[in-house]
Amino acid sequence: MTEVEKGPLGRRRGRGARERILSASQHLFRDQGINRTGMDQLCAEAQVSKRTAYQHFTSKDELVAEYLRRFDPHVMPEVFGRTDLTPRERLLAAFDMPASTPLCPYIAAAVELHDPQHPAAQYARDYKTAIAARLTETAREAGATDPEQLGEQLALLLDGASARTRVLNRESFPTAAAIAAVLIDNAIPSSSARQPSDDRGTTGSAPVPVGGR
Amino acid sequence: MTEVEKGPLGRRRGRGARERILSASQHLFRDQGINRTGMDQLCAEAQVSKRTAYQHFTSKDELVAEYLRRFDPHVMPEVFGRTDLTPRERLLAAFDMPASTPLCPYIAAAVELHDPQHPAAQYARDYKTAIAARLTETAREAGATDPEQLGEQLALLLDGASARTRVLNRESFPTAAAIAAVLIDNAIPSSSARQPSDDRGTTGSAPVPVGGR
Repeated sequence: MTEVEKGPLGRRRGRGARERILSASQHLFRDQGINRTGMDQLCAEAQVSKRTAYQHFTSKDELVAEYLRRFDPHVMPEVFGRTDLTPRERLLAAFDMPASTPLCPYIAAAVELHDPQHPAAQYARDYKTAIAARLTETAREAGATDPEQLGEQLALLLDGASARTRVLNRESFPTAAAIAAVLIDNAIPSSSARQPSDDRGTTGSAPVPVGGR
Repeated sequence: MTEVEKGPLGRRRGRGARERILSASQHLFRDQGINRTGMDQLCAEAQVSKRTAYQHFTSKDELVAEYLRRFDPHVMPEVFGRTDLTPRERLLAAFDMPASTPLCPYIAAAVELHDPQHPAAQYARDYKTAIAARLTETAREAGATDPEQLGEQLALLLDGASARTRVLNRESFPTAAAIAAVLIDNAIPSSSARQPSDDRGTTGSAPVPVGGR
């Protein structure tokens, strides 16, 4: 059934169209929003016909979902893949966002798409759950007493920083990083920490070191 | 210049139209978004002519700004006006959101309106600054060592809870409340707290009680 755009490169030209559409969606959705970007504009920007576009994506909804799936498929590997850092340092590194990082596209999609059953809204939910799972796993490696709780808390801080940066039009990640440092200090018994122990009482149960992966 | 809708009640009918438009904007913007709600639909819902609508609001942008100004003009009086609570309890009460509270409309507007100079985006920024100021003022009354820092941190948590509730389609305010409790405990020396002191060391400088209003 797949019909490709006519062109000297045949099938390769067809694949190029798909990439061009996704590339156009990346900057148009970010710069003007999902709802204000129509298929006409996407096609013009990608230099493909609407017929071709609908051969690659059955609907705009499907394109929006694919745009999100493409955005960060490996869930922050630039943070969680850093073997040069201790797990505790990786938790903090998640808050080192470059200045002017645009609003998180998963939050943007969930805000713009009012239907929680929209395929893109479902993917946004999966992604946000995956980020919390990555943080939880790293919190466990760092020896947190309740890694699930810390993971979910840090995930909420990331979302808060992204949303608040957008509303205030001013960086909020440093604020979130400061909160994260407090939570990590509270959740990870000081004997697990890298700095010399200050010997103060911890928040409760004894440290439970869990083997790294 | 103000021309009112023709009707048996004359001027009063004109004022009614303004309220009906604002009322329609409240539920349409919340349920389907700002960008997907056109003036035609707003007018149909409010049962006013477009001519009348433009007599009350020079543009949709102005209507969106007024919709936000109307939403919570006194900045959470149901929390900050509670004289039956201690300042510390008021800080925590800010996180007692009823289940199914819709996404914060100021975040929604900032996400949907990509221009930070849009009058509604400016108002959203002012509102978010006002919330942080209210929290700061309350943190100062509660004896926080750095009330500005605590106020901004708690404001970020509120934004994170609202955004994350939307993305996950599941309540995140309890997570934010748990973080808030940790931050408040860390920022407010235990001698200021209501519960019996556990006599552990505080985070630094002595309590600086500041006169409440």
